[in-house]
Amino acid sequence: MAIVLGPNQYGKAEVRLVTVTRDGPVHTIRDLTVGTSLRGDLADTHLTGDNSKVLATDTQKNTVYAFAKQAPVGEVEDFALRLGRHFVATQEAITGARVLIDEHAWERIEGNGHSFVRGSDEKRTTAVTVDGDRAWVVSGVRDLVVLKSAGSEFHGFPRDEYTTLAETDDRILATSVTARWRYQGDGVGWAESFTAIRGLLLTAFADTHSLSLQQTLYAMGEAVLRERPEVAEVRLSMPNKHHFAVDLSPFGLQNDNEVFFAADRPYGLIEGSVLRDDAEDPGSAWYALPAF
Amino acid sequence: MAIVLGPNQYGKAEVRLVTVTRDGPVHTIRDLTVGTSLRGDLADTHLTGDNSKVLATDTQKNTVYAFAKQAPVGEVEDFALRLGRHFVATQEAITGARVLIDEHAWERIEGNGHSFVRGSDEKRTTAVTVDGDRAWVVSGVRDLVVLKSAGSEFHGFPRDEYTTLAETDDRILATSVTARWRYQGDGVGWAESFTAIRGLLLTAFADTHSLSLQQTLYAMGEAVLRERPEVAEVRLSMPNKHHFAVDLSPFGLQNDNEVFFAADRPYGLIEGSVLRDDAEDPGSAWYALPAF
Amino acid sequence: MAIVLGPNQYGKAEVRLVTVTRDGPVHTIRDLTVGTSLRGDLADTHLTGDNSKVLATDTQKNTVYAFAKQAPVGEVEDFALRLGRHFVATQEAITGARVLIDEHAWERIEGNGHSFVRGSDEKRTTAVTVDGDRAWVVSGVRDLVVLKSAGSEFHGFPRDEYTTLAETDDRILATSVTARWRYQGDGVGWAESFTAIRGLLLTAFADTHSLSLQQTLYAMGEAVLRERPEVAEVRLSMPNKHHFAVDLSPFGLQNDNEVFFAADRPYGLIEGSVLRDDAEDPGSAWYALPAF
Amino acid sequence: MAIVLGPNQYGKAEVRLVTVTRDGPVHTIRDLTVGTSLRGDLADTHLTGDNSKVLATDTQKNTVYAFAKQAPVGEVEDFALRLGRHFVATQEAITGARVLIDEHAWERIEGNGHSFVRGSDEKRTTAVTVDGDRAWVVSGVRDLVVLKSAGSEFHGFPRDEYTTLAETDDRILATSVTARWRYQGDGVGWAESFTAIRGLLLTAFADTHSLSLQQTLYAMGEAVLRERPEVAEVRLSMPNKHHFAVDLSPFGLQNDNEVFFAADRPYGLIEGSVLRDDAEDPGSAWYALPAF
Repeated sequence: MAIVLGPNQYGKAEVRLVTVTRDGPVHTIRDLTVGTSLRGDLADTHLTGDNSKVLATDTQKNTVYAFAKQAPVGEVEDFALRLGRHFVATQEAITGARVLIDEHAWERIEGNGHSFVRGSDEKRTTAVTVDGDRAWVVSGVRDLVVLKSAGSEFHGFPRDEYTTLAETDDRILATSVTARWRYQGDGVGWAESFTAIRGLLLTAFADTHSLSLQQTLYAMGEAVLRERPEVAEVRLSMPNKHHFAVDLSPFGLQNDNEVFFAADRPYGLIEGSVLRDDAEDPGSAWYALPAF
Repeated sequence: MAIVLGPNQYGKAEVRLVTVTRDGPVHTIRDLTVGTSLRGDLADTHLTGDNSKVLATDTQKNTVYAFAKQAPVGEVEDFALRLGRHFVATQEAITGARVLIDEHAWERIEGNGHSFVRGSDEKRTTAVTVDGDRAWVVSGVRDLVVLKSAGSEFHGFPRDEYTTLAETDDRILATSVTARWRYQGDGVGWAESFTAIRGLLLTAFADTHSLSLQQTLYAMGEAVLRERPEVAEVRLSMPNKHHFAVDLSPFGLQNDNEVFFAADRPYGLIEGSVLRDDAEDPGSAWYALPAF
Repeated sequence: MAIVLGPNQYGKAEVRLVTVTRDGPVHTIRDLTVGTSLRGDLADTHLTGDNSKVLATDTQKNTVYAFAKQAPVGEVEDFALRLGRHFVATQEAITGARVLIDEHAWERIEGNGHSFVRGSDEKRTTAVTVDGDRAWVVSGVRDLVVLKSAGSEFHGFPRDEYTTLAETDDRILATSVTARWRYQGDGVGWAESFTAIRGLLLTAFADTHSLSLQQTLYAMGEAVLRERPEVAEVRLSMPNKHHFAVDLSPFGLQNDNEVFFAADRPYGLIEGSVLRDDAEDPGSAWYALPAF
Repeated sequence: MAIVLGPNQYGKAEVRLVTVTRDGPVHTIRDLTVGTSLRGDLADTHLTGDNSKVLATDTQKNTVYAFAKQAPVGEVEDFALRLGRHFVATQEAITGARVLIDEHAWERIEGNGHSFVRGSDEKRTTAVTVDGDRAWVVSGVRDLVVLKSAGSEFHGFPRDEYTTLAETDDRILATSVTARWRYQGDGVGWAESFTAIRGLLLTAFADTHSLSLQQTLYAMGEAVLRERPEVAEVRLSMPNKHHFAVDLSPFGLQNDNEVFFAADRPYGLIEGSVLRDDAEDPGSAWYALPAF
């Protein structure tokens, strides 16, 4: 028996990067949170503290900032690919890189070219993996909070000795969507694809008459795969943000699904993936990412 | 010398209330976080545990839900006034009430009458105080995050032995606005007033060429008071969300205010009030509210 | 009518300061979060952007770090007094200062003089106000979470049309104590006083047979005032962290107050003050602090 | 090409369970956050909304509470095994279950048998996976925040064009440890094993003269594996909570590693695993858990 080093990675997390581009009086801002992680021949630092192959996480941070100046940031997928490929190309010991980016939303304040108000807390995300000369892109959206006040039922579930839940044919359905989709093929238009996929997710959520949150989840993933050939797979994590109709009968009032208590914890948690049966091999695309 | 009970209040905090109103296939949702606090002849429960004058906080919560059914919620100010007046009117020992409401933003998902996506984290707020047969309304906005990428300078400040900050005539100015304004007079149109004041705050932030965040703060308050006679006073708390230009010179790059590090802590904190010198007496309007 | 500047202050919030003192191989660490705010003749910067009286918040931050080197930090009250008095003494326009400090807890890892493990999330706090040549100290504790599983009842409360809560003579009582106490007189031993007061608060919470959380709150304040002549007043904010006994009867089980659901929101919120009727005048001690 | 359902699971997250055990006047409390997830033949609900195989997440929650009454909770690993095996044994369509438990720390208030004060934010954790008639236990600790003020260096790292970090032979090393260890074999004494492993992690952190956080991470994992034959593998995620020595030279002061700024973001993130080369096959032990 021997004790050995297993899988590992290291990097800099949550580098906060804001850029300003000036086109005369009209400015454009980008607001990103960037994380980088490197993998490779890293046994020495773990076993002896020899750091000769450890590109400092401080250097990784500097690289993020320098790259943001050397060329326009562009789409987050492209920026992540530039960063990841740079680390693998320039550090002999580094064979793989992961770059995570969250993009935060800002909207213009009307009538002013350089003033902005923060948008919703929803983030556009990407997770790019570089492994040698290959690369994979998994993009997504986080904290996309949605609610529908009609078109949701839940019944027909098994009743065991611990079941007390009433069946319902009319409930509020609310969730905070985390979606990640794996791209395949080349030449994807990242911005156009993101906008279209987000729209498909919203429409599927809204338009699916839901008999379970699982059904809604599947419908959302399916809608993306049906319409977007550049997507191989969609993974979704969707907490069921329960809205309980308040029992108003003690006060002589009837609550016709009008008044709800929005609960925090516990919450249902529905997680699943939808994929093409002939999708490209995922390779390292999902390495060390959350399963859902 | 005697030990005595001083000021006190009690209530239920953070009651999460969501309502659905159905107008055929088109639904309207409201998402509120409500807190209630009562004051009055409450020495008994403190000194002896006699609760005969203590309307249970659970009852206060029930009242919030029941009231949301008995009549349309309407504007948050009106709902808070209804609640506050009810407690004072019906509980002999209760002479004062405070009702706090935060309203959370949702937007419609296009093409669907009953599906919604969460808006920004900004909240419309109100703090209503009822004292006997009088009432005061302090409304506001929280977590209104704004940024301008031009028109902000900071120089001319004193330099003592601990001063290292460079003067600048071009910096990013960003803050998360908490504003509260005290209404005076009667017959205020709450919704119209809120929308107008929020617009005035945004415009003043955007259009003021800023030599200090203090100057911007004052300009924002002044703009509201100048245009809105129904407002007696504005209180603002504005953290300076520092965006530091990254020093790229070690990499042979010049950063012309293009690449920034958005810092978390520490942060500047600018707090102040702007008021009319002939404003109505505030009475209990600000009782136990944050000073800024 | 004129629009005028009202009360205001500005400063640097949440300066994170960690110090290491070496006594041979045995080290001592201190972990503080410091905030400073200044008041005075600050109309110019608000009205015209003239910053000649505005000691930069960056300078305030530098001062915190420099002072931590120039002399041992000592008790947080002393460090806050040093900082506050410095700003008022050295800046002609500055007539008042507020210094807030939270101290974070660390414990030693056994058998090692320079290694530490984070203690509970409870913070020792101080809020020092300097106004000209006067100063006030309000110290306290935050996030002191306590629970008792016996000795708590709640009954005898009024029942109106919205009351559904059952009376109980046995419930869990849990809260997260925020306490602030105002010192009076001179020559207080800050460390000894803090330790004693914290002990009195805990003992009063534990030993008071509670008929209401208000009664417990009062007993806690009274215990401090009875034993500690250096304290003029105690203010307490105590959320009722509800633990609801789960109804297990649908499963043929009887829950004899053994199994509880710990709820997040909503929560009761009990706030109050206990004071000496012959206490020293508070002056500016509570300026802009939370009311409870 | 077809679109198909991929891996999925569903359950109830963050069920807050507090239990009280009475041994005369001396009470014992347990404070757990429990999550359950089920896997199996769940295509129907995803594809058609047929819920006949979907044990409701509400039922899963009820089961947690009922089980806490039916027998003493015992060690979290045993409670998780009971729950997971129950779901798989009683629901024909359910072939696998995951139960996650965090245990929160409380300490007794001295001199009182039924009063408690919250301990540190550190959690004892377990993640139990049941797959048919097999089961795996991965236990751990989260939010174990540690710091050492001596015995940490970092130098010898490569310097590329983006490297500005100075080498150091004396720095503060601080991290928040998330550790998970996979058990193998039978008859593990969960409580004794947890206490011993936590102690080994702390001692290895404290006593390892660190040339890199990677070295410390490996030493921590190795110490556990060397001493505890019941552990097959340890996975560690350790953010480098940077403490930067403040440059006091502008103030004519020399900072001999005495005064530090504790930074929030960005932070280094070191993740890795240490394992036995002859460890038992992990099977489904890590299914859908974070990679580190």
